[in-house]
Amino acid sequence: MALEVGFIGLGTMGQGMARNLAKAGFRLSVATRTPEKARALAAEVGATAFAHAEEVARAADVVVSCLPDAPEVEEVHLGPRGTAAGARKGAVVIDSSTIAPDAAVRIARGLSETGVAFLDAPVSGGQKGAIEGTLTFFVGGDGAALERARPVLSAMGKRITHLGPSGSGQLGKAVNQIVVAGTLMAVSEGIALAEKAGLPMAALHEALMGGAASGWMLDILGKKMIDRDFKPAFAIKHQQKDLAIVLKTAREKGVPLPGTALVHQLLSALEAQGRGEDGTQALLTLYERMIARS
Amino acid sequence: MALEVGFIGLGTMGQGMARNLAKAGFRLSVATRTPEKARALAAEVGATAFAHAEEVARAADVVVSCLPDAPEVEEVHLGPRGTAAGARKGAVVIDSSTIAPDAAVRIARGLSETGVAFLDAPVSGGQKGAIEGTLTFFVGGDGAALERARPVLSAMGKRITHLGPSGSGQLGKAVNQIVVAGTLMAVSEGIALAEKAGLPMAALHEALMGGAASGWMLDILGKKMIDRDFKPAFAIKHQQKDLAIVLKTAREKGVPLPGTALVHQLLSALEAQGRGEDGTQALLTLYERMIARS
Repeated sequence: MALEVGFIGLGTMGQGMARNLAKAGFRLSVATRTPEKARALAAEVGATAFAHAEEVARAADVVVSCLPDAPEVEEVHLGPRGTAAGARKGAVVIDSSTIAPDAAVRIARGLSETGVAFLDAPVSGGQKGAIEGTLTFFVGGDGAALERARPVLSAMGKRITHLGPSGSGQLGKAVNQIVVAGTLMAVSEGIALAEKAGLPMAALHEALMGGAASGWMLDILGKKMIDRDFKPAFAIKHQQKDLAIVLKTAREKGVPLPGTALVHQLLSALEAQGRGEDGTQALLTLYERMIARS
Repeated sequence: MALEVGFIGLGTMGQGMARNLAKAGFRLSVATRTPEKARALAAEVGATAFAHAEEVARAADVVVSCLPDAPEVEEVHLGPRGTAAGARKGAVVIDSSTIAPDAAVRIARGLSETGVAFLDAPVSGGQKGAIEGTLTFFVGGDGAALERARPVLSAMGKRITHLGPSGSGQLGKAVNQIVVAGTLMAVSEGIALAEKAGLPMAALHEALMGGAASGWMLDILGKKMIDRDFKPAFAIKHQQKDLAIVLKTAREKGVPLPGTALVHQLLSALEAQGRGEDGTQALLTLYERMIARS
Protein backbone atom coordinates (compact mmCIF):
# COMPACT_ATOMS: atom_id res chain seq x y z
CA MET A 1 0.00 0.00 0.00
CA ALA A 2 1.45 3.33 -1.06
CA LEU A 3 2.34 5.80 1.68
CA GLU A 4 0.17 8.87 2.08
CA VAL A 5 2.32 11.95 2.38
CA GLY A 6 1.79 15.44 3.78
CA PHE A 7 3.93 18.47 2.96
CA ILE A 8 4.07 21.69 4.97
CA GLY A 9 5.88 24.83 3.82
CA LEU A 10 5.70 25.66 0.12
CA GLY A 11 8.57 28.14 -0.13
CA THR A 12 11.46 28.25 -2.63
CA MET A 13 12.58 24.76 -1.65
CA GLY A 14 9.25 23.24 -0.64
CA GLN A 15 7.48 23.78 -3.95
CA GLY A 16 9.97 21.69 -5.89
CA MET A 17 10.08 18.99 -3.22
CA ALA A 18 6.26 18.72 -3.07
CA ARG A 19 6.02 18.51 -6.86
CA ASN A 20 8.49 15.62 -6.87
CA LEU A 21 6.42 13.79 -4.23
CA ALA A 22 3.31 14.13 -6.41
CA LYS A 23 5.27 13.04 -9.47
CA ALA A 24 6.41 9.90 -7.60
CA GLY A 25 2.76 8.91 -7.16
CA PHE A 26 2.23 9.52 -3.43
CA ARG A 27 -1.24 10.67 -2.41
CA LEU A 28 -0.33 14.16 -1.24
CA SER A 29 -1.81 16.73 1.19
CA VAL A 30 -0.29 20.18 1.54
CA ALA A 31 -0.46 23.24 3.79
CA THR A 32 1.47 26.48 3.95
CA ARG A 33 1.15 29.89 5.61
CA THR A 34 -0.56 31.47 2.57
CA PRO A 35 -3.70 29.38 1.83
CA GLU A 36 -3.91 30.41 -1.87
CA LYS A 37 -0.40 29.06 -2.42
CA ALA A 38 -1.43 25.68 -1.02
CA ARG A 39 -4.61 25.61 -3.14
CA ALA A 40 -2.70 26.56 -6.31
CA LEU A 41 -0.10 23.84 -5.88
CA ALA A 42 -2.74 21.28 -4.89
CA ALA A 43 -4.72 22.06 -8.06
CA GLU A 44 -1.58 21.82 -10.18
CA VAL A 45 -0.39 18.43 -8.97
CA GLY A 46 -3.65 16.80 -7.86
CA ALA A 47 -3.08 17.13 -4.11
CA THR A 48 -5.42 18.16 -1.28
CA ALA A 49 -4.89 21.57 0.34
CA PHE A 50 -5.57 22.05 4.06
CA ALA A 51 -5.40 25.11 6.29
CA HIS A 52 -3.56 23.47 9.18
CA ALA A 53 -0.80 20.96 9.80
CA GLU A 54 -3.23 19.03 12.06
CA GLU A 55 -5.40 18.19 9.03
CA VAL A 56 -2.41 17.32 6.87
CA ALA A 57 -1.21 14.96 9.57
CA ARG A 58 -4.60 13.18 9.79
CA ALA A 59 -4.26 12.30 6.09
CA ALA A 60 -0.63 11.17 6.11
CA ASP A 61 1.73 8.37 7.08
CA VAL A 62 4.72 10.64 6.53
CA VAL A 63 4.68 14.43 7.03
CA VAL A 64 7.49 16.51 5.51
CA SER A 65 8.12 20.12 6.55
CA CYS A 66 10.38 22.74 4.99
CA LEU A 67 10.31 25.98 7.02
CA PRO A 68 12.42 29.07 7.74
CA ASP A 69 13.67 28.34 11.27
CA ALA A 70 13.09 26.55 14.59
CA PRO A 71 10.12 28.66 15.86
CA GLU A 72 8.13 27.82 12.72
CA VAL A 73 9.06 24.13 12.95
CA GLU A 74 8.03 24.04 16.61
CA GLU A 75 4.75 25.86 15.87
CA VAL A 76 3.85 23.64 12.91
CA HIS A 77 4.51 20.34 14.68
CA LEU A 78 3.88 21.01 18.38
CA GLY A 79 1.65 24.13 18.35
CA PRO A 80 -2.16 24.29 18.47
CA ARG A 81 -3.57 22.71 15.28
CA GLY A 82 -0.12 21.32 14.67
CA THR A 83 1.02 17.93 13.41
CA ALA A 84 1.06 16.33 16.89
CA ALA A 85 -2.65 17.09 17.33
CA GLY A 86 -3.65 15.12 14.24
CA ALA A 87 -0.90 12.59 13.60
CA ARG A 88 -1.62 8.91 13.02
CA LYS A 89 -0.01 6.38 15.36
CA GLY A 90 3.37 5.39 13.96
CA ALA A 91 3.55 8.38 11.65
CA VAL A 92 6.96 9.78 10.72
CA VAL A 93 7.65 13.53 10.61
CA ILE A 94 10.60 14.60 8.45
CA ASP A 95 11.79 18.17 8.92
CA SER A 96 14.04 19.34 6.10
CA SER A 97 14.53 22.86 7.50
CA THR A 98 17.95 23.96 8.73
CA ILE A 99 17.59 24.64 12.47
CA ALA A 100 19.75 24.31 15.57
CA PRO A 101 20.58 20.70 16.51
CA ASP A 102 19.27 21.20 20.06
CA ALA A 103 15.95 22.52 18.72
CA ALA A 104 15.66 19.37 16.59
CA VAL A 105 16.25 17.23 19.68
CA ARG A 106 13.55 19.17 21.59
CA ILE A 107 10.99 18.79 18.80
CA ALA A 108 11.77 15.08 18.46
CA ARG A 109 11.11 14.67 22.18
CA GLY A 110 7.80 16.57 21.95
CA LEU A 111 6.55 14.46 19.06
CA SER A 112 7.65 11.17 20.62
CA GLU A 113 5.18 11.83 23.47
CA THR A 114 2.36 11.34 20.95
CA GLY A 115 3.96 8.27 19.40
CA VAL A 116 5.29 10.09 16.35
CA ALA A 117 8.87 9.61 15.11
CA PHE A 118 10.82 12.71 14.08
CA LEU A 119 13.71 12.83 11.63
CA ASP A 120 15.81 15.98 11.29
CA ALA A 121 16.75 15.90 7.62
CA PRO A 122 18.19 19.23 6.42
CA VAL A 123 19.27 19.33 2.81
CA SER A 124 21.97 20.66 0.55
CA GLY A 125 21.57 21.21 -3.17
CA GLY A 126 19.55 24.43 -3.24
CA GLN A 127 16.50 25.26 -5.31
CA LYS A 128 18.00 23.49 -8.31
CA GLY A 129 18.37 20.25 -6.33
CA ALA A 130 14.83 20.64 -4.94
CA ILE A 131 13.38 21.00 -8.45
CA GLU A 132 15.46 18.22 -9.97
CA GLY A 133 15.03 15.82 -7.05
CA THR A 134 18.78 15.60 -6.47
CA LEU A 135 19.00 16.91 -2.90
CA THR A 136 21.35 15.48 -0.30
CA PHE A 137 19.63 14.72 3.03
CA PHE A 138 21.62 14.75 6.28
CA VAL A 139 19.44 12.59 8.53
CA GLY A 140 19.27 12.32 12.33
CA GLY A 141 16.81 10.17 14.29
CA ASP A 142 15.62 6.60 14.60
CA GLY A 143 16.97 4.24 11.92
CA ALA A 144 13.74 2.21 11.65
CA ALA A 145 11.68 5.39 11.12
CA LEU A 146 14.13 6.39 8.39
CA GLU A 147 13.63 3.06 6.64
CA ARG A 148 9.83 3.50 6.71
CA ALA A 149 10.18 7.02 5.29
CA ARG A 150 12.99 6.30 2.82
CA PRO A 151 10.74 6.04 -0.28
CA VAL A 152 9.52 9.56 0.48
CA LEU A 153 13.05 10.94 0.80
CA SER A 154 14.15 9.07 -2.33
CA ALA A 155 11.49 10.92 -4.34
CA MET A 156 13.14 14.24 -3.40
CA GLY A 157 16.86 13.49 -3.22
CA LYS A 158 19.63 11.26 -4.45
CA ARG A 159 21.74 10.95 -1.30
CA ILE A 160 20.17 10.09 2.05
CA THR A 161 22.76 9.74 4.78
CA HIS A 162 21.90 8.62 8.30
CA LEU A 163 24.30 10.31 10.71
CA GLY A 164 22.98 9.18 14.10
CA PRO A 165 20.30 10.08 16.68
CA SER A 166 18.10 13.23 16.66
CA GLY A 167 20.10 16.36 15.96
CA SER A 168 22.80 14.52 13.97
CA GLY A 169 21.32 15.60 10.65
CA GLN A 170 21.51 19.23 11.74
CA LEU A 171 25.09 18.72 12.92
CA GLY A 172 25.99 17.30 9.51
CA LYS A 173 24.37 20.28 7.82
CA ALA A 174 26.35 22.59 10.12
CA VAL A 175 29.57 20.96 8.91
CA ASN A 176 28.40 21.48 5.34
CA GLN A 177 27.78 25.18 5.99
CA ILE A 178 31.22 25.60 7.58
CA VAL A 179 32.94 24.19 4.50
CA VAL A 180 30.72 26.14 2.10
CA ALA A 181 31.15 29.48 3.92
CA GLY A 182 34.92 29.19 4.27
CA THR A 183 35.30 28.22 0.63
CA LEU A 184 33.12 31.20 -0.34
CA MET A 185 35.58 33.50 1.44
CA ALA A 186 38.57 31.78 -0.16
CA VAL A 187 37.11 32.11 -3.67
CA SER A 188 36.13 35.76 -3.05
CA GLU A 189 39.65 36.66 -1.90
CA GLY A 190 41.23 34.89 -4.86
CA ILE A 191 38.99 36.60 -7.38
CA ALA A 192 39.41 40.00 -5.72
CA LEU A 193 43.19 39.76 -6.13
CA ALA A 194 42.91 38.44 -9.68
CA GLU A 195 40.65 41.34 -10.69
CA LYS A 196 42.93 43.95 -9.14
CA ALA A 197 45.93 42.36 -10.87
CA GLY A 198 44.11 42.52 -14.20
CA LEU A 199 44.27 38.80 -14.98
CA PRO A 200 42.01 37.40 -17.74
CA MET A 201 39.26 35.95 -15.58
CA ALA A 202 37.75 33.27 -17.83
CA ALA A 203 41.17 31.76 -18.64
CA LEU A 204 42.19 31.91 -14.97
CA HIS A 205 38.95 30.24 -13.86
CA GLU A 206 39.55 27.38 -16.24
CA ALA A 207 43.15 26.96 -15.08
CA LEU A 208 42.13 27.00 -11.40
CA MET A 209 39.51 24.32 -12.06
CA GLY A 210 42.32 22.00 -13.21
CA GLY A 211 43.88 21.55 -9.77
CA ALA A 212 43.57 21.60 -6.00
CA ALA A 213 41.47 24.80 -6.01
CA SER A 214 38.69 23.07 -7.94
CA GLY A 215 35.27 22.55 -6.40
CA TRP A 216 31.58 23.39 -6.55
CA MET A 217 31.96 26.87 -5.03
CA LEU A 218 34.73 27.99 -7.42
CA ASP A 219 32.95 26.39 -10.35
CA ILE A 220 29.42 27.73 -9.81
CA LEU A 221 29.74 30.79 -7.55
CA GLY A 222 33.20 31.78 -8.82
CA LYS A 223 31.73 31.88 -12.32
CA LYS A 224 28.80 34.01 -11.12
CA MET A 225 31.28 36.43 -9.48
CA ILE A 226 33.19 36.75 -12.75
CA ASP A 227 29.92 37.27 -14.63
CA ARG A 228 28.83 39.79 -11.96
CA ASP A 229 25.64 37.84 -11.37
CA PHE A 230 24.71 38.44 -7.73
CA LYS A 231 21.18 37.05 -7.87
CA PRO A 232 20.55 34.63 -5.05
CA ALA A 233 21.13 30.93 -5.53
CA PHE A 234 21.50 31.04 -1.75
CA ALA A 235 20.76 34.42 -0.14
CA ILE A 236 23.17 36.07 2.30
CA LYS A 237 20.41 36.34 4.94
CA HIS A 238 19.91 32.57 4.83
CA GLN A 239 23.65 31.91 5.01
CA GLN A 240 23.81 34.23 8.02
CA LYS A 241 20.95 32.44 9.78
CA ASP A 242 22.77 29.15 9.24
CA LEU A 243 26.15 30.51 10.36
CA ALA A 244 24.61 31.91 13.54
CA ILE A 245 23.36 28.39 14.30
CA VAL A 246 26.77 26.93 13.43
CA LEU A 247 28.73 29.31 15.66
CA LYS A 248 26.36 28.88 18.61
CA THR A 249 26.43 25.10 18.24
CA ALA A 250 30.22 25.02 17.88
CA ARG A 251 30.64 27.12 21.01
CA GLU A 252 28.35 24.80 22.95
CA LYS A 253 30.42 21.84 21.73
CA GLY A 254 33.61 23.71 22.61
CA VAL A 255 35.04 24.04 19.11
CA PRO A 256 36.49 27.44 18.07
CA LEU A 257 35.88 28.29 14.40
CA PRO A 258 37.89 31.46 13.67
CA GLY A 259 37.56 31.17 9.89
CA THR A 260 33.80 30.62 9.98
CA ALA A 261 33.39 33.50 12.43
CA LEU A 262 35.30 35.77 10.06
CA VAL A 263 33.03 34.93 7.09
CA HIS A 264 30.00 35.58 9.30
CA GLN A 265 31.38 39.01 10.22
CA LEU A 266 32.22 39.93 6.63
CA LEU A 267 28.75 38.91 5.43
CA SER A 268 27.24 41.05 8.20
CA ALA A 269 28.76 44.07 6.44
CA LEU A 270 26.74 43.19 3.35
CA GLU A 271 23.61 42.89 5.50
CA ALA A 272 24.38 46.37 6.85
CA GLN A 273 24.50 47.59 3.24
CA GLY A 274 20.97 46.22 2.80
CA ARG A 275 22.12 43.37 0.56
CA GLY A 276 20.84 40.40 2.57
CA GLU A 277 18.72 39.26 -0.38
CA ASP A 278 21.74 39.01 -2.71
CA GLY A 279 23.40 35.67 -3.32
CA THR A 280 26.36 34.81 -1.10
CA GLN A 281 28.71 35.29 -4.06
CA ALA A 282 28.18 39.04 -3.49
CA LEU A 283 30.87 38.68 -0.79
CA LEU A 284 33.27 39.55 -3.62
CA THR A 285 31.79 43.05 -3.76
CA LEU A 286 32.73 43.68 -0.12
CA TYR A 287 36.42 43.23 -1.04
CA GLU A 288 35.92 45.50 -4.04
CA ARG A 289 34.20 48.15 -1.93
CA MET A 290 36.91 47.96 0.75
CA ILE A 291 39.59 48.94 -1.75
CA ALA A 292 37.66 51.39 -3.93
CA ARG A 293 39.30 54.83 -3.90
CA SER A 294 37.09 57.46 -2.35
CA MET B 1 63.95 19.38 -35.84
CA ALA B 2 63.20 18.34 -32.28
CA LEU B 3 63.86 20.87 -29.53
CA GLU B 4 66.81 20.31 -27.23
CA VAL B 5 65.76 20.77 -23.63
CA GLY B 6 67.61 21.53 -20.40
CA PHE B 7 66.23 20.92 -16.90
CA ILE B 8 67.56 22.46 -13.71
CA GLY B 9 66.41 21.47 -10.24
CA LEU B 10 65.74 17.77 -9.65
CA GLY B 11 63.69 17.99 -6.44
CA THR B 12 60.34 16.38 -5.59
CA MET B 13 58.64 18.04 -8.54
CA GLY B 14 61.58 18.33 -10.94
CA GLN B 15 62.39 14.61 -11.08
CA GLY B 16 58.95 13.69 -12.43
CA MET B 17 58.93 16.60 -14.85
CA ALA B 18 62.38 15.77 -16.23
CA ARG B 19 61.45 12.09 -16.66
CA ASN B 20 58.39 13.12 -18.69
CA LEU B 21 60.56 15.31 -20.94
CA ALA B 22 62.88 12.37 -21.63
CA LYS B 23 59.89 10.09 -22.23
CA ALA B 24 58.53 12.58 -24.79
CA GLY B 25 61.74 12.15 -26.83
CA PHE B 26 63.48 15.48 -26.24
CA ARG B 27 67.28 15.40 -26.13
CA LEU B 28 67.74 16.31 -22.46
CA SER B 29 70.50 17.92 -20.35
CA VAL B 30 70.15 18.21 -16.58
CA ALA B 31 71.79 19.93 -13.64
CA THR B 32 70.95 20.20 -9.96
CA ARG B 33 72.64 21.27 -6.73
CA THR B 34 73.76 17.72 -5.85
CA PRO B 35 75.86 16.43 -8.81
CA GLU B 36 75.24 12.72 -8.06
CA LYS B 37 71.49 13.29 -8.32
CA ALA B 38 71.93 14.79 -11.79
CA ARG B 39 74.20 11.92 -12.88
CA ALA B 40 71.79 9.27 -11.56
CA LEU B 41 68.78 10.73 -13.36
CA ALA B 42 70.81 11.28 -16.54
CA ALA B 43 71.91 7.62 -16.53
CA GLU B 44 68.34 6.46 -15.91
CA VAL B 45 66.69 8.38 -18.75
CA GLY B 46 69.56 8.76 -21.23
CA ALA B 47 70.22 12.46 -20.58
CA THR B 48 73.47 14.40 -20.16
CA ALA B 49 74.39 15.67 -16.69
CA PHE B 50 76.22 18.97 -16.27
CA ALA B 51 77.55 20.76 -13.21
CA HIS B 52 76.27 24.25 -14.08
CA ALA B 53 73.24 25.91 -15.65
CA GLU B 54 75.59 27.63 -18.11
CA GLU B 55 76.47 24.26 -19.70
CA VAL B 56 72.86 23.11 -19.73
CA ALA B 57 71.91 26.33 -21.52
CA ARG B 58 74.61 25.84 -24.20
CA ALA B 59 72.99 22.52 -25.12
CA ALA B 60 69.34 23.64 -25.10
CA ASP B 61 66.70 25.55 -27.03
CA VAL B 62 64.42 25.54 -23.99
CA VAL B 63 65.63 25.53 -20.37
CA VAL B 64 63.18 24.57 -17.61
CA SER B 65 63.87 25.27 -13.94
CA CYS B 66 62.08 24.05 -10.84
CA LEU B 67 63.60 25.55 -7.70
CA PRO B 68 62.74 26.42 -4.08
CA ASP B 69 62.40 30.23 -4.25
CA ALA B 70 63.42 33.47 -5.98
CA PRO B 71 67.07 33.62 -4.80
CA GLU B 72 67.76 30.19 -6.32
CA VAL B 73 65.99 31.13 -9.57
CA GLU B 74 67.98 34.36 -9.80
CA GLU B 75 71.26 32.56 -9.07
CA VAL B 76 70.61 29.77 -11.59
CA HIS B 77 69.64 32.05 -14.46
CA LEU B 78 71.48 35.33 -13.84
CA GLY B 79 74.36 34.33 -11.53
CA PRO B 80 77.93 33.40 -12.51
CA ARG B 81 77.87 30.17 -14.55
CA GLY B 82 74.12 30.68 -14.89
CA THR B 83 71.80 30.21 -17.85
CA ALA B 84 72.33 33.76 -19.22
CA ALA B 85 76.08 33.09 -19.56
CA GLY B 86 75.57 30.11 -21.88
CA ALA B 87 72.18 30.57 -23.51
CA ARG B 88 71.69 30.27 -27.26
CA LYS B 89 70.20 33.25 -29.09
CA GLY B 90 66.40 32.95 -29.09
CA ALA B 91 66.38 30.42 -26.28
CA VAL B 92 63.36 30.25 -23.95
CA VAL B 93 63.70 29.85 -20.20
CA ILE B 94 60.66 28.46 -18.38
CA ASP B 95 60.68 28.76 -14.60
CA SER B 96 58.11 26.51 -12.94
CA SER B 97 59.03 27.54 -9.38
CA THR B 98 56.55 29.50 -7.26
CA ILE B 99 58.17 32.88 -6.56
CA ALA B 100 57.00 36.47 -6.10
CA PRO B 101 55.54 38.06 -9.27
CA ASP B 102 57.91 41.03 -9.02
CA ALA B 103 60.91 38.69 -8.81
CA ALA B 104 59.72 36.98 -11.99
CA VAL B 105 59.50 40.36 -13.73
CA ARG B 106 63.04 41.21 -12.58
CA ILE B 107 64.47 37.90 -13.83
CA ALA B 108 62.66 38.26 -17.17
CA ARG B 109 64.23 41.69 -17.59
CA GLY B 110 67.71 40.36 -16.76
CA LEU B 111 67.44 37.53 -19.29
CA SER B 112 66.00 39.72 -22.02
CA GLU B 113 69.28 41.70 -22.01
CA THR B 114 71.00 38.60 -23.41
CA GLY B 115 68.23 37.94 -25.95
CA VAL B 116 66.62 35.15 -23.93
CA ALA B 117 62.84 34.98 -23.38
CA PHE B 118 61.59 34.14 -19.89
CA LEU B 119 58.26 32.54 -19.02
CA ASP B 120 57.09 32.38 -15.41
CA ALA B 121 55.12 29.13 -15.34
CA PRO B 122 54.36 27.95 -11.80
CA VAL B 123 52.35 24.77 -11.54
CA SER B 124 49.57 23.19 -9.56
CA GLY B 125 48.99 19.46 -9.31
CA GLY B 126 51.70 18.44 -6.85
CA GLN B 127 54.13 15.54 -7.04
CA LYS B 128 51.39 13.29 -8.44
CA GLY B 129 50.76 15.70 -11.32
CA ALA B 130 54.52 16.02 -11.93
CA ILE B 131 54.92 12.24 -12.17
CA GLU B 132 51.81 11.68 -14.29
CA GLY B 133 52.40 14.67 -16.57
CA THR B 134 49.07 16.24 -15.64
CA LEU B 135 50.26 19.56 -14.17
CA THR B 136 48.48 22.86 -14.73
CA PHE B 137 50.85 25.67 -15.83
CA PHE B 138 49.97 29.31 -15.06
CA VAL B 139 52.04 31.14 -17.67
CA GLY B 140 53.24 34.75 -17.83
CA GLY B 141 55.48 36.24 -20.53
CA ASP B 142 55.69 36.67 -24.28
CA GLY B 143 53.03 34.76 -26.24
CA ALA B 144 55.36 33.90 -29.14
CA ALA B 145 57.94 32.46 -26.74
CA LEU B 146 55.17 30.38 -25.17
CA GLU B 147 54.22 28.97 -28.58
CA ARG B 148 57.85 27.96 -29.28
CA ALA B 149 58.07 26.28 -25.87
CA ARG B 150 54.57 24.77 -25.83
CA PRO B 151 55.66 21.24 -26.89
CA VAL B 152 57.97 21.18 -23.86
CA LEU B 153 55.18 22.26 -21.47
CA SER B 154 52.75 19.80 -23.06
CA ALA B 155 55.10 16.94 -22.18
CA MET B 156 54.78 17.85 -18.49
CA GLY B 157 51.22 19.11 -18.09
CA LYS B 158 47.70 18.96 -19.44
CA ARG B 159 46.61 22.58 -18.98
CA ILE B 160 48.80 25.46 -20.14
CA THR B 161 47.11 28.81 -19.58
CA HIS B 162 48.64 32.08 -20.76
CA LEU B 163 47.59 34.82 -18.32
CA GLY B 164 49.49 37.83 -19.66
CA PRO B 165 52.96 39.47 -19.47
CA SER B 166 55.81 38.47 -17.14
CA GLY B 167 54.62 37.95 -13.57
CA SER B 168 51.08 36.99 -14.61
CA GLY B 169 51.75 33.29 -14.16
CA GLN B 170 52.89 33.92 -10.58
CA LEU B 171 49.81 36.08 -9.95
CA GLY B 172 47.60 33.24 -11.19
CA LYS B 173 49.39 30.81 -8.90
CA ALA B 174 48.88 33.25 -6.01
CA VAL B 175 45.13 33.17 -6.67
CA ASN B 176 45.30 29.36 -6.67
CA GLN B 177 47.07 29.35 -3.29
CA ILE B 178 44.49 31.75 -1.81
CA VAL B 179 41.63 29.45 -2.78
CA VAL B 180 43.48 26.32 -1.67
CA ALA B 181 44.53 27.74 1.72
CA GLY B 182 41.09 29.14 2.57
CA THR B 183 39.42 25.89 1.61
CA LEU B 184 41.92 24.00 3.76
CA MET B 185 40.81 26.07 6.77
CA ALA B 186 37.13 25.56 5.92
CA VAL B 187 37.54 21.78 5.66
CA SER B 188 39.60 21.64 8.88
CA GLU B 189 36.95 23.58 10.84
CA GLY B 190 34.15 21.42 9.48
CA ILE B 191 35.92 18.18 10.33
CA ALA B 192 36.94 19.45 13.78
CA LEU B 193 33.29 20.12 14.66
CA ALA B 194 32.15 16.82 13.15
CA GLU B 195 34.70 14.87 15.22
CA LYS B 196 33.77 16.65 18.44
CA ALA B 197 30.08 16.02 17.72
CA GLY B 198 30.80 12.31 17.21
CA LEU B 199 29.42 12.08 13.68
CA PRO B 200 30.30 9.02 11.56
CA MET B 201 33.06 10.51 9.46
CA ALA B 202 33.06 8.30 6.35
CA ALA B 203 29.29 8.65 5.88
CA LEU B 204 29.47 12.40 6.49
CA HIS B 205 32.32 12.80 3.99
CA GLU B 206 30.30 11.03 1.33
CA ALA B 207 27.22 13.18 2.05
CA LEU B 208 29.27 16.41 1.93
CA MET B 209 30.75 15.41 -1.42
CA GLY B 210 27.22 15.37 -2.86
CA GLY B 211 26.68 19.12 -2.68
CA ALA B 212 28.09 22.64 -2.57
CA ALA B 213 30.85 21.65 -0.13
CA SER B 214 32.38 19.27 -2.67
CA GLY B 215 35.82 19.89 -4.12
CA TRP B 216 39.38 18.66 -4.41
CA MET B 217 40.42 19.76 -0.91
CA LEU B 218 37.48 18.08 0.86
CA ASP B 219 37.83 15.00 -1.31
CA ILE B 220 41.58 14.41 -1.06
CA LEU B 221 42.78 16.26 2.05
CA GLY B 222 39.49 15.86 3.97
CA LYS B 223 39.84 12.11 3.49
CA LYS B 224 43.46 12.20 4.71
CA MET B 225 42.33 14.13 7.82
CA ILE B 226 39.70 11.47 8.55
CA ASP B 227 42.28 8.73 8.00
CA ARG B 228 44.75 10.68 10.19
CA ASP B 229 47.32 10.62 7.41
CA PHE B 230 49.40 13.76 7.87
CA LYS B 231 52.22 12.85 5.48
CA PRO B 232 52.98 15.68 3.09
CA ALA B 233 51.30 15.85 -0.29
CA PHE B 234 52.11 19.54 0.09
CA ALA B 235 54.17 20.45 3.17
CA ILE B 236 53.13 23.22 5.57
CA LYS B 237 56.51 24.94 5.13
CA HIS B 238 55.93 25.19 1.38
CA GLN B 239 52.39 26.47 1.85
CA GLN B 240 53.75 29.09 4.25
CA LYS B 241 56.41 30.21 1.77
CA ASP B 242 53.69 30.62 -0.86
CA LEU B 243 51.29 32.43 1.49
CA ALA B 244 54.02 34.86 2.51
CA ILE B 245 54.43 35.71 -1.19
CA VAL B 246 50.65 35.98 -1.61
CA LEU B 247 50.15 38.33 1.34
CA LYS B 248 53.08 40.55 0.36
CA THR B 249 51.89 40.71 -3.25
CA ALA B 250 48.28 41.41 -2.22
CA ARG B 251 49.39 44.23 0.06
CA GLU B 252 51.43 45.76 -2.76
CA LYS B 253 48.38 45.52 -5.03
CA GLY B 254 46.22 46.99 -2.26
CA VAL B 255 43.96 43.99 -1.67
CA PRO B 256 43.26 42.95 1.95
CA LEU B 257 42.96 39.18 2.43
CA PRO B 258 41.76 38.62 6.01
CA GLY B 259 40.88 34.96 5.47
CA THR B 260 44.19 34.11 3.84
CA ALA B 261 46.07 35.97 6.57
CA LEU B 262 44.22 33.92 9.20
CA VAL B 263 45.21 30.59 7.60
CA HIS B 264 48.83 31.81 7.42
CA GLN B 265 48.75 32.63 11.14
CA LEU B 266 47.16 29.30 12.11
CA LEU B 267 49.71 27.36 10.06
CA SER B 268 52.48 29.32 11.77
CA ALA B 269 51.39 27.67 15.03
CA LEU B 270 52.09 24.28 13.45
CA GLU B 271 55.50 25.53 12.34
CA ALA B 272 56.14 26.60 15.94
CA GLN B 273 55.30 23.02 16.99
CA GLY B 274 58.04 21.81 14.63
CA ARG B 275 55.56 20.35 12.15
CA GLY B 276 56.52 22.30 9.03
CA GLU B 277 57.28 19.06 7.19
CA ASP B 278 53.77 17.68 7.73
CA GLY B 279 51.15 17.96 5.01
CA THR B 280 48.88 21.00 5.17
CA GLN B 281 45.98 18.75 6.20
CA ALA B 282 47.63 18.67 9.65
CA LEU B 283 45.88 22.01 10.21
CA LEU B 284 43.08 19.85 11.64
CA THR B 285 45.34 18.88 14.53
CA LEU B 286 45.70 22.53 15.56
CA TYR B 287 41.95 22.70 16.18
CA GLU B 288 42.13 19.41 18.08
CA ARG B 289 45.06 20.64 20.17
CA MET B 290 43.31 23.95 20.93
CA ILE B 291 40.39 22.16 22.55
CA ALA B 292 42.16 19.24 24.19
CA ARG B 293 41.62 19.28 27.98
CA SER B 294 44.84 19.82 29.89
